[in-house]
Amino acid sequence: MSSTDAVYQELADLLREVELLNSTGSVLSWDEQTYMPTGGSEHRANQLALLAGLTHERRVSPRIGELLAELQSADLGDPDGDVAVNVREAKRNFERATKLPKRLVEELSRTTSLAQQAWISARKDSEFAKFLPWLKKMIALKREEAAAHGAPSGVAYDALLDDYEPGMTAARVAEVFAPLRDALVPLVAAIQAAPKQPPAEIVERHYPVTAQKVFVDAAARRIGFDMERGRIDESAHPFCSGFGPGDCRLTTRFHDHHFNSAFFGVLHEAGHGMYEQGLRADQMGLGVGQACSLGIHESQSRMWENFVGRSRAFWQYFYSSAQQAFPTALGDVSLDDFHFAINDVRPSFIRVEADEVTYNLHIMLRFEMEQKLLSGELEAEDVPTAWNETFQKFFALTPENDAHGCLQDIHWGAGLFGYFPTYALGNMYAAQFFETAQAELGDLNALFAAGDFRPLKEWLNANIHAHGKRYPAGRLVEVVTGKPLSHEPLMRQLTAKFSELYGL
Amino acid sequence: MSSTDAVYQELADLLREVELLNSTGSVLSWDEQTYMPTGGSEHRANQLALLAGLTHERRVSPRIGELLAELQSADLGDPDGDVAVNVREAKRNFERATKLPKRLVEELSRTTSLAQQAWISARKDSEFAKFLPWLKKMIALKREEAAAHGAPSGVAYDALLDDYEPGMTAARVAEVFAPLRDALVPLVAAIQAAPKQPPAEIVERHYPVTAQKVFVDAAARRIGFDMERGRIDESAHPFCSGFGPGDCRLTTRFHDHHFNSAFFGVLHEAGHGMYEQGLRADQMGLGVGQACSLGIHESQSRMWENFVGRSRAFWQYFYSSAQQAFPTALGDVSLDDFHFAINDVRPSFIRVEADEVTYNLHIMLRFEMEQKLLSGELEAEDVPTAWNETFQKFFALTPENDAHGCLQDIHWGAGLFGYFPTYALGNMYAAQFFETAQAELGDLNALFAAGDFRPLKEWLNANIHAHGKRYPAGRLVEVVTGKPLSHEPLMRQLTAKFSELYGL
Repeated sequence: MSSTDAVYQELADLLREVELLNSTGSVLSWDEQTYMPTGGSEHRANQLALLAGLTHERRVSPRIGELLAELQSADLGDPDGDVAVNVREAKRNFERATKLPKRLVEELSRTTSLAQQAWISARKDSEFAKFLPWLKKMIALKREEAAAHGAPSGVAYDALLDDYEPGMTAARVAEVFAPLRDALVPLVAAIQAAPKQPPAEIVERHYPVTAQKVFVDAAARRIGFDMERGRIDESAHPFCSGFGPGDCRLTTRFHDHHFNSAFFGVLHEAGHGMYEQGLRADQMGLGVGQACSLGIHESQSRMWENFVGRSRAFWQYFYSSAQQAFPTALGDVSLDDFHFAINDVRPSFIRVEADEVTYNLHIMLRFEMEQKLLSGELEAEDVPTAWNETFQKFFALTPENDAHGCLQDIHWGAGLFGYFPTYALGNMYAAQFFETAQAELGDLNALFAAGDFRPLKEWLNANIHAHGKRYPAGRLVEVVTGKPLSHEPLMRQLTAKFSELYGL
Repeated sequence: MSSTDAVYQELADLLREVELLNSTGSVLSWDEQTYMPTGGSEHRANQLALLAGLTHERRVSPRIGELLAELQSADLGDPDGDVAVNVREAKRNFERATKLPKRLVEELSRTTSLAQQAWISARKDSEFAKFLPWLKKMIALKREEAAAHGAPSGVAYDALLDDYEPGMTAARVAEVFAPLRDALVPLVAAIQAAPKQPPAEIVERHYPVTAQKVFVDAAARRIGFDMERGRIDESAHPFCSGFGPGDCRLTTRFHDHHFNSAFFGVLHEAGHGMYEQGLRADQMGLGVGQACSLGIHESQSRMWENFVGRSRAFWQYFYSSAQQAFPTALGDVSLDDFHFAINDVRPSFIRVEADEVTYNLHIMLRFEMEQKLLSGELEAEDVPTAWNETFQKFFALTPENDAHGCLQDIHWGAGLFGYFPTYALGNMYAAQFFETAQAELGDLNALFAAGDFRPLKEWLNANIHAHGKRYPAGRLVEVVTGKPLSHEPLMRQLTAKFSELYGL
């Protein structure tokens, strides 16, 4: 074993241990949101803060710095090879982590726990005032975090965005969002004006929760989410958390008078989950064993939720079992009517329940607001008013209360500023990947109609999941699709699908 | 603030942090046994081993040693006061912990995780061979642990027992078990020979699991288990785990043709849970905020399970709701017949489902075997044979397979050697406490019959829970009851109850 090998092995072992400790925090956070009794929240916040501090201590351990310095001038082989990528990512993470004081990391962790509890209560009662002090505190902490990181652009938002979508900037996001918005707005208008409208009430019939649980569990398994290495639970806000190799948890929420919420929520989270399950176990804690970016993560969830789960071909396979599971709701409904109903496009209040066309506008609203909150152009107490005004501008609607407005998302309470744009980037990545998969695998619809989702899953395993962070997101798109990121594939797919459905 | 105060505060803060970290391991262990998918077991074992190592590192941190040394000659006030007790317990724990090498602690943790997984599978398939290598490994590690601790008696078993029942020895256990056994054997014989026998089939009728869940949840709340600060889930082996102030988890298992298993299992675990919920939150991680001993813990569970839950008075209050919950099973059954059926005494295979009379014999069997396993008088591969022979000797029965014999309990796979005797000690403590409560609170049966369990719970809160480890178990018994531990209260209660039921 050469000296470089030994140094790399020691580094890899340390990083695996960091991830082992970090993932204990994931278990505690998952429990906090699924099963923890309310009385446990203070102790849990203290546990998570301690773990965050311990993990941070290890991330910035001087030994990691020494090992990285020793590898600085070493020959690590192919720059896109496992070793070079893992060292590159270790260096990036070490540099980011060493910029944050331990006190700030612990304070962020503790505040995140308590702010989320406050958010749950504020949202339940639609009382923004309950959440306001926590939002203020969180914004102050995130500004401090952004200042500690710094960004080449000097823009605070960019320093936070870089955590989720490495290399991306607010300016570049604004640039890719612009043509997308320009193309979406006339499509939404055309859809709203179309004489043919979906029988939307179908999805609001009675869908007994017990039957939903069985049906959605079967669908998640069928598309390829491995229940030996994961499970589905319930929480206020759906999420996916990969605890480590062999254990990935999804959550959803059930409404007995809304089919879409739990079903497409689970397909979405299962898309995330299959990405986690597709990561290389032998590279746990290392760059090539970690998801590329949140935008790429979201491309996986959006692809399974929308391009697969809302396709007619998918329901050619699943619709007869849906009718058996929900005979009262669906017994008299044709496949075409059901398919049109689950593809209802109309401006609405809740992002996570929005259709795949207007969804992107929800993101643009949040992207605008959180930039202003960080820059100070908008004060936390003015969030409800600003939200409702922007919402009116984007959707020609005003939320009836804050639970349906600015309190709907967990993100700001969880400290996730700069996270929202990755959702819309994910939609664009997804469409571009999907066109390529279509070109390489042949008629995906024929496969879906036969209940065969394995070719697509395995294509994603090989082309996206197995690479981890080998390439930054922008380059991964080029490597996989041969072209730089563009809004065109997404608009092509949306236009084709909804023109047919709405007879445009 | 005096210098002693400052030293004590620093010590207390360090100990609280140790407990905070330790309790993250409790969350992970709970999840492992309730919700974790099988694919997560290896990663979980690694997480728990890391946490165990980190916790151990903090327990033995030189700073704790320094602070204890500084407090060595300080005036800590009343030796039974909070400060003196917390320092005494900190010293004991530090001395025990510093005797164990970190490697052994981590190895024990990892082996415990994997051995429990192996035990679950071995028990499911009733294949002792699957468990044997883990049992061997565990015995070797526990011998190593006992040797590291040492015991004044020189007996390895005593060093392990001291972890669960401080100050107790195998010789003393044998001494208190002897008169208990001498009194139990003729009582069991008289019960078996009684012409009047219970209508035992009643509890084996169909009890739909959904109805059981609702009923047992209501019963646990009614007796005083606080669901805002705890919850009930399912696991292969029922347990109670206090994560910290405000969060205590119980588990049970449901059989649709056995009423007793889940119901009395939950009353039992709720007894443990109310002890945990009764500990002082402000003393978390410190001696007076921790349970006295496992025997005292067990006295709480046994009291609620048997002296309360299997009393006629309890069912005077609960029986009509039981009949409403299970109309098919209980609609035609009288209160007296039901009460007799749940108090069926007969030799049987499964400890956790044994009646309150023969239960103690199950413990004596395990106590004999585990002493021999540690001393080397019995080899691990001979466990099934030895178990079945001893079982025949104690119960005149032979288990039909190892799942009903030596594989039934999680303890040895979990490394809990020296734990079993605390169950029978708990029965004796419980009876002695209950007689005193009865004398101080008046007619407990009249309260139970009216559904009023609060006086007993509050008596236990004040007399047992609030003291934590202020007194060692033996002294706590004397402080509370005015007498040293004796088997007589237990035998008095068993004899009175079963003489009446069986017409002896």
